[in-house]
Amino acid sequence: MTLLDVAREAGVSPSTVSRILNGTARVTSDKRQAVESAISKLDFKPNLFARSLKTGTTMTIGILAQDIESPFYTRAMKGIETGLLGSGYAPIIVSGHWDAREEAERVRLLMTRRIDGVVILTGHMDDAQIVEFARHQPIVVTGRHLDSHNIIAIKLDQVRGGYLATRHLISLGHRRIAHIAGVRDHDDAKDRYQGYLQAHEEAGLTPDPELVVQGDFTEPGGLLAMTRLLDGGRSFTAVFCANDQSAFGARVVLYRRGIRVPDDVSLVGVDDLPAAAYLTPPITTVRQPIYEMGLYAANALLGMLGHTAEEVQVPPLELIVRETTRRV
Amino acid sequence: MTLLDVAREAGVSPSTVSRILNGTARVTSDKRQAVESAISKLDFKPNLFARSLKTGTTMTIGILAQDIESPFYTRAMKGIETGLLGSGYAPIIVSGHWDAREEAERVRLLMTRRIDGVVILTGHMDDAQIVEFARHQPIVVTGRHLDSHNIIAIKLDQVRGGYLATRHLISLGHRRIAHIAGVRDHDDAKDRYQGYLQAHEEAGLTPDPELVVQGDFTEPGGLLAMTRLLDGGRSFTAVFCANDQSAFGARVVLYRRGIRVPDDVSLVGVDDLPAAAYLTPPITTVRQPIYEMGLYAANALLGMLGHTAEEVQVPPLELIVRETTRRV
Repeated sequence: MTLLDVAREAGVSPSTVSRILNGTARVTSDKRQAVESAISKLDFKPNLFARSLKTGTTMTIGILAQDIESPFYTRAMKGIETGLLGSGYAPIIVSGHWDAREEAERVRLLMTRRIDGVVILTGHMDDAQIVEFARHQPIVVTGRHLDSHNIIAIKLDQVRGGYLATRHLISLGHRRIAHIAGVRDHDDAKDRYQGYLQAHEEAGLTPDPELVVQGDFTEPGGLLAMTRLLDGGRSFTAVFCANDQSAFGARVVLYRRGIRVPDDVSLVGVDDLPAAAYLTPPITTVRQPIYEMGLYAANALLGMLGHTAEEVQVPPLELIVRETTRRV
Repeated sequence: MTLLDVAREAGVSPSTVSRILNGTARVTSDKRQAVESAISKLDFKPNLFARSLKTGTTMTIGILAQDIESPFYTRAMKGIETGLLGSGYAPIIVSGHWDAREEAERVRLLMTRRIDGVVILTGHMDDAQIVEFARHQPIVVTGRHLDSHNIIAIKLDQVRGGYLATRHLISLGHRRIAHIAGVRDHDDAKDRYQGYLQAHEEAGLTPDPELVVQGDFTEPGGLLAMTRLLDGGRSFTAVFCANDQSAFGARVVLYRRGIRVPDDVSLVGVDDLPAAAYLTPPITTVRQPIYEMGLYAANALLGMLGHTAEEVQVPPLELIVRETTRRV
């Protein structure tokens, strides 16, 4: 469907169609009606690309995720997608693959496409780089604090995540609580570990540093970490995993070794991914409002782009007790 | 970073930079070198949006998925993303949510953005609509046969999927094999059911129609279907689930009821989603080459857009025996 098709259908010249679309036409109402019914009959959509030359907008929003296949990012993107519904903006998604240089490269790639704004979902890029990008485009960034012009940052309280998970285990009488940590040097990972320490301290307990093993937020990482824990030979009755995917991996190793969950070992994750409820047993976890964070990001960006966006409340992290934890 | 920044850095006029970028410059090699080093120093990317006005291309590919959060679609999108790597094309992703009208609407939305081509991942749109879209853009469509101008269609042999799963169960001595079907009227769902019937017929068995229950390819759908099956009171020793997500849902109900997998009931899915290996026990399934299908789609589209794309082989569906099936 082109403008020419519309002109042919309406029996007018292409420039008449063009002028009607641009709102610059002085034409008879007969012609206008003919064009409008041709547009509706042919289901013609004026070329956004051409129109954006006039208005300077592309009605496109760039999203930088880390991994398009990770359920964390798809949940956040679902929130953004829903938040943009009806706004006319469409998302373009690119992946940074947890590499600060690749992330910056991808945001530049987005910007060469003349998007109207960017949502950066976590990642390793440094603040200065994001501030530089914000000179050109409004940016919403998640997973960090960043107070700067043209930037809205949202950071969930991840210390609370680690604290809630660990306090729950302590309240069930666990004293030897292992921890499968997240990606090294990742803020969320450090914060959740901090929460793990905080809950111990509050209870007057000293965690065994030998029970803290490195994971990387993925299932295979959780699998390896749990293997190292068990092979390390130090006893424990519970494991706080830095996220659900780590817990999924850890769970398989326990199953393999005939260690029952929660009878022999209690397990807690963080995120409350959709899959968490479909593990057997369904996993106890700390719910992160990932979807709501996506909604919030979309609405914050719409607001920065001059649209009246509804205020989205992002609820705090909360403990979801399912069936992988029990009293010792 | 704009062209002006590059001009300033190189100490030349903006129009000189522009002419060098367009390849229309007749300038001294000194100036050219100054511009090139400024471009590299500033990491300047010429504005694709402006450039595309000249060439008529946007270096953007539209992808129609059904659900941005489903692991089937994210696996396929990962394949497409990998297939596009290094080509300069970036994907825009939209969701059709399993609704033929919404799907067509979304493809139109993509087209108003002047993308260069479209990948349609399954869905309910009718062939005629896709043929109409292909008048404007090259299209790669998965999950159906469609031989038409400007279209490459790829359909995996889903009958084989149902056949392999069911034959495996029959070979283990199962005779009362239930089936949790996929989305009603969905081609893949019908084909897999056909394969289920075929394996029975080949073995001289008649399946009990009461053991076939409706699912919808989702975890909650599998959960409901398994509940209906168990409450129906007809005996069975194995279940062929139309996809992995249905099997995940079914698994939880069996766990709830204290029915052991595979000791009491064997379970087979289709897809081999990454999560299938992290269920306890890890699930036996028929592997669909979803990722390779995404790679294939990307390369087929690049080929239609005039690029030399490598030939991608999509392997046939194959049975992956894990730990949810055993001999009766």
